[in-house]
Formats: sequence, C-alpha cells, structure tokens
Amino acid sequence: MLQNDLLLRAARGEEVERVPVWLMRQAGRILPEYRAVRAKAKNFIEFVKNAELAAEVTVQPVDILGVDAAIIFSDILVIPEAMGLSYQMIEAKGPWFERTIATQQDTDKLVVTDGSNLQYVYDAIRLAKKQLNNRVPLIGFCGAPWTLFAYMVEGSGSKTFSKAKKLLYTNPKLAHQVLEKITQSSINYLLAQVEAGANLIQIFDSWAGVLSPEMHTEFSLKYMAMISDALSKKVPVTIFAKDAHFALAEIKNNSCSVVGLDWSVNPNEARKILGANKTLQGNADPCLLYADYAEIEKQTKQMLNAFGKHRYIANLGHGLYPDTEKEKVKFFVDCIKKHSYAKTADKIHA
Amino acid sequence: MLQNDLLLRAARGEEVERVPVWLMRQAGRILPEYRAVRAKAKNFIEFVKNAELAAEVTVQPVDILGVDAAIIFSDILVIPEAMGLSYQMIEAKGPWFERTIATQQDTDKLVVTDGSNLQYVYDAIRLAKKQLNNRVPLIGFCGAPWTLFAYMVEGSGSKTFSKAKKLLYTNPKLAHQVLEKITQSSINYLLAQVEAGANLIQIFDSWAGVLSPEMHTEFSLKYMAMISDALSKKVPVTIFAKDAHFALAEIKNNSCSVVGLDWSVNPNEARKILGANKTLQGNADPCLLYADYAEIEKQTKQMLNAFGKHRYIANLGHGLYPDTEKEKVKFFVDCIKKHSYAKTADKIHA
Repeated sequence: MLQNDLLLRAARGEEVERVPVWLMRQAGRILPEYRAVRAKAKNFIEFVKNAELAAEVTVQPVDILGVDAAIIFSDILVIPEAMGLSYQMIEAKGPWFERTIATQQDTDKLVVTDGSNLQYVYDAIRLAKKQLNNRVPLIGFCGAPWTLFAYMVEGSGSKTFSKAKKLLYTNPKLAHQVLEKITQSSINYLLAQVEAGANLIQIFDSWAGVLSPEMHTEFSLKYMAMISDALSKKVPVTIFAKDAHFALAEIKNNSCSVVGLDWSVNPNEARKILGANKTLQGNADPCLLYADYAEIEKQTKQMLNAFGKHRYIANLGHGLYPDTEKEKVKFFVDCIKKHSYAKTADKIHA
Repeated sequence: MLQNDLLLRAARGEEVERVPVWLMRQAGRILPEYRAVRAKAKNFIEFVKNAELAAEVTVQPVDILGVDAAIIFSDILVIPEAMGLSYQMIEAKGPWFERTIATQQDTDKLVVTDGSNLQYVYDAIRLAKKQLNNRVPLIGFCGAPWTLFAYMVEGSGSKTFSKAKKLLYTNPKLAHQVLEKITQSSINYLLAQVEAGANLIQIFDSWAGVLSPEMHTEFSLKYMAMISDALSKKVPVTIFAKDAHFALAEIKNNSCSVVGLDWSVNPNEARKILGANKTLQGNADPCLLYADYAEIEKQTKQMLNAFGKHRYIANLGHGLYPDTEKEKVKFFVDCIKKHSYAKTADKIHA
C-alpha cells in the first residue's frame, strides 16, 4: 500500500486533502545529485540503459524535492531504438538518427517490439519501486506515436518538423503504417512498465503543436486513444499534448484520466472544454522559477486558485529548464503543499 | 491609383469581388529567380542592405506567382542593428548577435533610432513601388518589440527563449525600458516606410507563443498596441502573433485592421473571438504545399469556405518553407483566385 497516493487519487477524481505535485524533468540536470550520477555513465544512452543509475536518479527528487511522485528516468526514443532505429544524443544539439523512415522498405524493416528488448527499463522500474518502498507512486511514460514518428522521419529535432509533416501530406498511407507499428510497440512497452510496477502512465506528445487540428486528430490523437484504451483499464493515463490547445475538446472523449496542460492554456477555459471528468495537470511556466521567491509564491497561489483543489495535479507546463536553481524548485513544491491545504474542498465549475 | 487594391479593401472591410492572396516569405528561396539575385550579394546582410537587389526580389512574386501584394524584402533584425546591436545571419543556424542585452548599462547604450539609419529600406521601397507601377499594394513590416527583445537578449534563435523570458521574470523594469526603446524605434521606422510608399504594415510577433497569456499581454501586446495606434491612422495594420491563440480576445481591442492566424486556429472560432470588425489573414499549413494538386485544391477550398469572402485575406499560417515547389505555390494562388470568385457575397457570423 502506498503511503502517499495523492497523485493516484487526484487522477481518479477522488477526494484529496491537498493538491499533489511533481515536475516534468524533476530527475534531471537541476539536481547536482543527478549530475554526479550522470557522470558515471559514458554517454546519455548508456546512462538510460543502466538500470541501477536510472533507478537512482528516479528516486532522487522524492528525497530531495519532496515531490508526490517519481517518474522513471528514461527517454521517449527508446521505442524507435527498440524498433530498429538507433539514435545518438548529441550534446547541446539533441537526438540524431543515422537511419530514418522515408520509404515502404524502411517501414517494412521496422520491428514491432513485444517490449522484451526494453528489459533495462523494467529493471529500472523494479529497482526504483524497491527504493521508493511504497512512499509515492511511480509514473511510467512513452512518447506519443506522432512525436516518435516526427523524430524517426526527420532524423533529429526541428523547429517545424516539415520533413515529417511532408510524409503525412504526400504518403498518408505509409505514415499510418509507421504510426500503427509505433503504437503497437508502445502498448507492449507500457503494459510491461505497468507489470514492473508503474502506477500511472503519461503519454508525451511533445510535437503535437506543429500539426493542424485536423492533422493532429488523424495522425496523433487516434493513436494516443489506442494506447490510452489499452492501458487505462489497468492504471490511470495522462495525455500531455504540448501546444495543442485545439485538441482539448477531442481529448475530452479520450479514455485518459488526466490531461497535461502547457502554460498557454487558461485553467478555467481548459476546465470548461474538458468538463468535470478529467483531472488537469500543469501548468506553470518553467521560467517562473527564475523569479524571486515572492513572485514564485504569488503566481503559484494564483495557479492553485485557478485550478482548484479537486481533480488537479500541480506541475509545470513543460519540463524544468536545466539552469533552474534547485532551491527555487524546492520552494515551488513547498508552495503547492502549503497553499493547497488552505483551500476548502471546492467543486468544479464546468 | 492602384489597379488591384483587393488587399487594402479587404483590410478595411470593404466589398471585394474575390479574396486577395499573398504569401509570407513569397520573396524567398522557393523562387529560382530569387536565388539568382541572392547570389549577387556577398551575404544575407549585404543583400538586405542593397536597395536594388531588395527591390528586385520584392517585385518578383507579383510577376511570377500573381499575388495581390508585394512585401518589401528585408529582415525584422534591421531594427536591433539600427539600435546598435549588429547581427550575423549564419547559414542553417539563423541570426547571431555578438553583443546582447543583460544589464542597465547595455540598455542605456541602446539607441532609439529616428529611422534615418534605415534609409536603405526606404530606398528599396521606393524602387519597388516604381517597378510595381501601381499594379498591387506594397506591404511594409517590422518585428514585434517582444520578438526583437527575444533575439536581443537571447543572442540567437532558441526553442524556449528561456534567457529572454528570464529577464522578464527577474527584471521586468529593465525589460520594459528595452521594449519602450524598441517600440519608439519601430514607430519611427514604420512611419518612414509609409512615407516611402508602404500601403499596409504587418507586425510579426514570431515568438509570441513562448509567453504565457499574462506575460504576452504585459510584454508584447502593450507595445504592439502603441505601434498600431501610431500607424493605423495612416495605413491598415496587421498583427500576426504566431502561436498566440490565447491573445486573440485582446487583439480584438487593438486598433489593427487585420489579424494574422497560424494553422492551429480554427477559422470559425477566430471569427467568433475577433468579431466582425477585423479582417482575418491566413492560415494554411505551409506543409499543405507538399501535397499533390488535388489535395491542395481540396484544402484550399475548405479554407475559403471556412473564412468566407468578406474581411478575409488568404495566406499561409507561417512563411513558405524553402523546399516548397514553385509550381505548387503558384497553384495555391490560382486556387484562391478561382474558387473565391465562385462564392456569393456572404456575411460574417460573429
């Protein structure tokens, strides 16, 4: 039994005594403790594949920042790799794929993984769960099929992902084949994460925002729905479609329990669109944590007031930026804990 | 008198017989004719500063693509340069500033230009106007103060502009000083553009989308309003705040005539938010032009139906991508011309 199950109760829409909080990229470079462990691995990929090191940095933020959940330290690009497209993480540049997907032949060669070649992730989850010792839940995750597709076709990060989008416009049939293979691989992978102990699954659609609403419905939401349907009977599912304000109305009909919001979205409007049956997660601007303590506290209180205490998980609207001061991050977490107790139980107006 | 003033009539909300069309980055690398002229200049900055060459590529799309407006070939970063921060345009990387703004001393050193050191732009406008010979209107432009600030503080492009945003959070007073200087410089610059012959002014807030709604109101819209107020008595003003769906409700109260929309925004919702007194401009996904001709025609018709004929200017939701086929761009322009005649005069439902 979990000692602190605030996150899961909030996700399921149950009563909570205060708002739970965790932070995207909490297991990351803002912690000197993380950087010390990171230095033990030869490169980023080796780091991700080392279950002991991955488990260690997964647990760190629970001890150091006092967050209400751990999220397994890994990378969304382990799925393309497990499907046969290996990648490198180039310092200050981001991911880079030697081979990309352009043709039917490329697509046919892509492996649908049963998840068995990602054992190192499940090992890390099991180790982290052991070290967490039921203190808080552990979040598992994957990239949205569209977001993984974007990297697999583009071959690297991009401002526009115009090469990946070009394939959607010029060969939608092939694009759907690739997306189906990614989706099936992701479902197998996530089911194994849950089997290993993940208590909630988050799907990161990091590049949702480069698609038009119609394209996002056809090439992204459809596949996130398949994943969500396959997983949500076992654990709560969170969908975070960054910069896809237009997608909220359709996400309302997704089987997920939680919807991640970036800071471009107004909390009241999001609640109006999503209704009373979804938990909202977010959405502070990561740059707020550059401000002084008084400003952080002021804006955190505003955020809590806007979202209310019920069906809400406090977080940022994106991952922590690496140059954020650890003390400010801790202060943000403390502000959530302090001020969300103060609010009386409130209803959702939606 | 202009032979084709569709753009200006649409901007002012007057009757039009068909929807006018132009394309952001129409004077650019998609045209072999542009690349031939570009090759005559040593580098991008020299190209921008050469009034003859700039005028020549400004007029090309009118002749070659048949668009209903020319837009002066220049760069938004001529303003930082005129204020004392010179930049380089690095191939495949984008702009780079040797000196940036971080302190009060940096800010004090920034010059408010009266516009006189941007004579090469006005020369280019006069030459282009002569070559256009009253066929179509000429659009002048500037970057939004926030967007210019973002480059001047960050020193280069960025996915997050977290360094520029950090200054907003840590020293808002200084940020406002910089923004005021940029605004005053921009007003002087734009008034001189109009004096030289610009018939409409577009303000490009390319990095609007990295700000939260509150930050965008305080640090961007406020300054765009000052520019719009100073210019809109002379010519129609267009505001294009990319990725700032959240800002539309406030832009409704801006003195601009035209609001540019990216492809993340639904035309009907934009009309509902902005009301009947703004002209909408946009918003095809530039990647649509990678599709085959039938698909381009289908989606262009859908766009025309969604926006209607009144108070609408057809365009993309962002600049043309450089690898777009010239024939497809021409086809898009022709589709607008062909299909917007077919629609009977319709009313705006807002």
